[in-house]
Amino acid sequence: MVAAPPQSGLLKVGVAGASGFTGGELLRILAGHPHVQLTLAAAGSQAGAAVSSLHPFLDGVVDLVTCDVATLVERSSELDCLFLALPHGESFGIVPKLTSPALKVIDLSGDYRLRDPSLYEQHYHRPHGDAAALPQFVYGLTELRRAEIATASRIANPGCFATAVTLALAPLVAAGLVTPIVHVSAVTGSTGSGAGVTPALHHSLRSDNFVAYKVFGHQHLPEIQQSLGLADPASSCRLVLQTHSAPLVRGIHATVFAELRSGARSEDVGAVFRETYASASFVRLREQPPNLKWVRGTNFTDLSWHVDGTSVIVLAAIDNLIKGAAGQAVQNMNVAFGLPETAGLKAMIGGGL
Amino acid sequence: MVAAPPQSGLLKVGVAGASGFTGGELLRILAGHPHVQLTLAAAGSQAGAAVSSLHPFLDGVVDLVTCDVATLVERSSELDCLFLALPHGESFGIVPKLTSPALKVIDLSGDYRLRDPSLYEQHYHRPHGDAAALPQFVYGLTELRRAEIATASRIANPGCFATAVTLALAPLVAAGLVTPIVHVSAVTGSTGSGAGVTPALHHSLRSDNFVAYKVFGHQHLPEIQQSLGLADPASSCRLVLQTHSAPLVRGIHATVFAELRSGARSEDVGAVFRETYASASFVRLREQPPNLKWVRGTNFTDLSWHVDGTSVIVLAAIDNLIKGAAGQAVQNMNVAFGLPETAGLKAMIGGGL
Amino acid sequence: MVAAPPQSGLLKVGVAGASGFTGGELLRILAGHPHVQLTLAAAGSQAGAAVSSLHPFLDGVVDLVTCDVATLVERSSELDCLFLALPHGESFGIVPKLTSPALKVIDLSGDYRLRDPSLYEQHYHRPHGDAAALPQFVYGLTELRRAEIATASRIANPGCFATAVTLALAPLVAAGLVTPIVHVSAVTGSTGSGAGVTPALHHSLRSDNFVAYKVFGHQHLPEIQQSLGLADPASSCRLVLQTHSAPLVRGIHATVFAELRSGARSEDVGAVFRETYASASFVRLREQPPNLKWVRGTNFTDLSWHVDGTSVIVLAAIDNLIKGAAGQAVQNMNVAFGLPETAGLKAMIGGGL
Amino acid sequence: MVAAPPQSGLLKVGVAGASGFTGGELLRILAGHPHVQLTLAAAGSQAGAAVSSLHPFLDGVVDLVTCDVATLVERSSELDCLFLALPHGESFGIVPKLTSPALKVIDLSGDYRLRDPSLYEQHYHRPHGDAAALPQFVYGLTELRRAEIATASRIANPGCFATAVTLALAPLVAAGLVTPIVHVSAVTGSTGSGAGVTPALHHSLRSDNFVAYKVFGHQHLPEIQQSLGLADPASSCRLVLQTHSAPLVRGIHATVFAELRSGARSEDVGAVFRETYASASFVRLREQPPNLKWVRGTNFTDLSWHVDGTSVIVLAAIDNLIKGAAGQAVQNMNVAFGLPETAGLKAMIGGGL
Repeated sequence: MVAAPPQSGLLKVGVAGASGFTGGELLRILAGHPHVQLTLAAAGSQAGAAVSSLHPFLDGVVDLVTCDVATLVERSSELDCLFLALPHGESFGIVPKLTSPALKVIDLSGDYRLRDPSLYEQHYHRPHGDAAALPQFVYGLTELRRAEIATASRIANPGCFATAVTLALAPLVAAGLVTPIVHVSAVTGSTGSGAGVTPALHHSLRSDNFVAYKVFGHQHLPEIQQSLGLADPASSCRLVLQTHSAPLVRGIHATVFAELRSGARSEDVGAVFRETYASASFVRLREQPPNLKWVRGTNFTDLSWHVDGTSVIVLAAIDNLIKGAAGQAVQNMNVAFGLPETAGLKAMIGGGL
Repeated sequence: MVAAPPQSGLLKVGVAGASGFTGGELLRILAGHPHVQLTLAAAGSQAGAAVSSLHPFLDGVVDLVTCDVATLVERSSELDCLFLALPHGESFGIVPKLTSPALKVIDLSGDYRLRDPSLYEQHYHRPHGDAAALPQFVYGLTELRRAEIATASRIANPGCFATAVTLALAPLVAAGLVTPIVHVSAVTGSTGSGAGVTPALHHSLRSDNFVAYKVFGHQHLPEIQQSLGLADPASSCRLVLQTHSAPLVRGIHATVFAELRSGARSEDVGAVFRETYASASFVRLREQPPNLKWVRGTNFTDLSWHVDGTSVIVLAAIDNLIKGAAGQAVQNMNVAFGLPETAGLKAMIGGGL
Repeated sequence: MVAAPPQSGLLKVGVAGASGFTGGELLRILAGHPHVQLTLAAAGSQAGAAVSSLHPFLDGVVDLVTCDVATLVERSSELDCLFLALPHGESFGIVPKLTSPALKVIDLSGDYRLRDPSLYEQHYHRPHGDAAALPQFVYGLTELRRAEIATASRIANPGCFATAVTLALAPLVAAGLVTPIVHVSAVTGSTGSGAGVTPALHHSLRSDNFVAYKVFGHQHLPEIQQSLGLADPASSCRLVLQTHSAPLVRGIHATVFAELRSGARSEDVGAVFRETYASASFVRLREQPPNLKWVRGTNFTDLSWHVDGTSVIVLAAIDNLIKGAAGQAVQNMNVAFGLPETAGLKAMIGGGL
Repeated sequence: MVAAPPQSGLLKVGVAGASGFTGGELLRILAGHPHVQLTLAAAGSQAGAAVSSLHPFLDGVVDLVTCDVATLVERSSELDCLFLALPHGESFGIVPKLTSPALKVIDLSGDYRLRDPSLYEQHYHRPHGDAAALPQFVYGLTELRRAEIATASRIANPGCFATAVTLALAPLVAAGLVTPIVHVSAVTGSTGSGAGVTPALHHSLRSDNFVAYKVFGHQHLPEIQQSLGLADPASSCRLVLQTHSAPLVRGIHATVFAELRSGARSEDVGAVFRETYASASFVRLREQPPNLKWVRGTNFTDLSWHVDGTSVIVLAAIDNLIKGAAGQAVQNMNVAFGLPETAGLKAMIGGGL
């Protein structure tokens, strides 16, 4: 059943993980959302701090004091929707305690994305703590799962690389246009690593630098394979995903290299993109290669495709904190509660610069 | 007389200078403004292009095709409000032709900011082309001129450095707390130079670099002096303003050095700031030095002050394209049309990264 | 015949194109070279300016006044070695006039790199102006052509992308380890576009941005194919090269995706790299993915390779202005004059930040 | 007595603090120094690691394995010169143990810069651990203390801000040209904070940002006052120094605001700069405001001065890791051992970009 929009006005919404980069973006977006009343925000070790103290840019915008996560769980029955923006592994301790039947939960970590818990354990290097709940979770790549999301009460929000790469590849794979070998080169900005500091995030080392990381090993790969139906051993396509750290604050850019199957026509490529995204409010099909400034501060995914002989290149750009995290989570909330899909997501920061 | 809010709904608004950075920001903000219908946009040499072609980030957000400036002038009687976001000197050819009595005009160039046309000629290195109109213009530093702006039909929107420095200094100067010599060191990002390219804006030279420019000669100095009442030769305070190019995209940061007059007390400093900005929606008084991420993508001015012995430092941060240009222009429109001062400017508040 | 080191001391060296980024790097490196006497520098429209005025960072380092190119040509018989660091197409007007028999010429443009002039015309969009001279030119990828360079009097210095990608791929292709389809994703910094300004080089647009350009069409592709022996239609390997603009000042990073041929063993990959570069002073084989800070300001090429199942990823990093231009040109000069290959290139090694 | 240059060839040199940014720069510079044999390098918690592992950019350049600091102290009699590039406070535990009579010690921390240990305790927030040794230390601002440095065996290398500001101000203060109030606004890059990570150094927060820090409280202020003779309460000049974090990797830029004393002539300003630095190899007097690219990777201090009415602005630019740390330390070693002052310091990285 698709939820009716809230009668009495506003959805009561909570955020766990308020102190992180994604938590800050969620709070910013939700504070401006016309159908939302920001009700609870939880921060781990900084519980008790005002949101405006954790995120000084939200001073005068969000007027909430954080509680701890246990308190948020206890009070979760007051909420219509709860976003979990916590480090990987922490949602396992929370989701089983969220028993309020009306509550919808949107988890932004990797904990409930992979249907096969052994894949999770292999890629996240920890036990899966709540395999029993996996069947309840819908994978929240909105453009590809809108109908399921509309009736879901548990949504696993996609990873940032997975969002960009899957939207770039899904039309080609679904239509069977490309051969088994697909190579993806993708780059991320430093917000993609979260607010914690490591030597690799030191400004002096990240600036004016570029480096591949997790060679052959990024944990978003199985998520993409699952979405594309490639986890099936009988699948006719396999993927190499190479991720890179770029001197960007925000953004994911993906360059997808594929080869047309024999018989596939160059013009089929554009046709499947146009058809797949005909009604997508947040996908823009571009003739020119998209750049990150076009999507910065927005929930858009910008895509272009290019064919030369039998080779295809698809280019995708998103803002990792918005379409790659907080924005898509709100988009999913909108769909799950029967609100207009773009509610609260039209306002952009940054104006392309 | 304060204008009544538009009865029938929306203000019809036009923008001249749609292809520039400031023009793009105006279009973005106005597109999300709840009381505005974006009606006309003019672009000089690129007239005829869609806004989404001039600013690909506005694809799907602004659906307008640009006309040329002459057409916009001809059709200006259709508008309630016209923003001129043109290079210095170009407004002189337009303002005299805007004869529609109901039209309010907000000029974002330096053309009508200085009351004394000879000062304009000295600092902008060209003749003043419309001195006759100067008396009609109100200087649009909203926080300091709100009452005049409310009844104005011609508004000269302040410069970006002038906005930051004047808001940082005005409370101290008005209260007579500081001695004659005030030194200001200020930095700007590269959007402050506009979308035209020069060698100094080459990414290779601007990145990871820092340099003073226009030593003793920035054209915003007389604007600040005028606002502070220091243009008067009898004034008891004079200013040195040194501007710098920093490797920033957006932002103005000002560091104001002053010395307390004998008899002024340290606690007077905070008192005059709190009093001056008690009801200002877009000024945030900070205990910590403000940084540009706090104001990025917002219309806020963040200020802090610090006293050590007889020395005072005031720190100010704004987004040059928003509070320093397009945002303050919309804030002035709101005041001039009797709308809530924050209308259309809250939605995109925040960012932080 | 390999040239003997100069008896009487120093090589007399000239540089045409002194005002560009590459020209500046050449002058800097040559000024510190123990076997060089910087003798002549030519600058086009800025002829007559001191080098220290064109490049203020060289004040106190290079004490030369530039002449125009015609003068440099006239006086070229005074030189042992002439570097041409001019825009593509300009060397055609100069090389035929350089008739001094002892003079060695190192051209850093694309003009003499491709043996087939029709490929040049297709990729550089202009006629080839000196096809008759092509047989005299040796392609100056030092590590792969050292013997030919040692006796050459005309050297076509490789392009920056071509240097990185060819060094990354040549061992695999020469050993026949990989299948026909190779996908390369590469990024460049803004110095790669030279000192001229274009909108895409505006700091506001280049910073914090990432975009693909020349999709399927970069002019270094045929250069790489030629080096790898893939220009031959019978070749068993073809390449897709996708280049990207990153917010870097300096650097080329290449990510090469290939698939092992059936029968090729994982351990063969490392073996061919170690063998190929066993005696290369400026190639460092790395276990970890190389980053651009490791090679910044140096003539090194850092390479790593990674195998997963049948897929191979090779990563390469160079400084585009040094190994990708001025440094390799000096390395070639060293080889061509019988000097130690590292002469003048060790002193400035390092940096790292 | 000025030391004679080493007869037998090379100075044996050690570095403590090899793992830091300054340690890396010292090793890079010393590796290319024609009169130095890099003999020992100590790293604290990473002792035992090869230098090429701590600083991969030095692979193939420095071939040393680090020892721990205790071992370095034990073996210090093997050395002619020892550089201490350790966190503030750590030199106190080492210097008293360095009893070898021929050894010269150059300390790059703040531990021995201030003659008055109570000032140290006030500004560095810890006890002074070796006040007895203070009289042996010469303050190593080479241009102003060359004669003392030439005979010193203990040198306290200046701080980065102190170097830039003191060189900019000393000629004016020594000549008595300026009034008591001097305001200095200075900016630093992120390498100035060292290789340890803190939230403020996170790339996402440091990039595209600007913020004042240590308002009225930077520990280099007393160092500047001491150098200028202003620590004396009878001094006729006092200083305000405001430091800022800029999104730079390398560099210090200082903007000095002063007012001419009555009677001082505008032309006196230039005269005292020219006279003070007439024989300084590493000070370049500029007509245009210096930018950081001019000095990047070099040991130069670039200075310009500007007078308008009674106001003076002096602008200074240095590379914080070179003239502000490792380069000046080597310059001091050169002077202390009677070598040419520029030995090993002519080679530059980075070529202005």
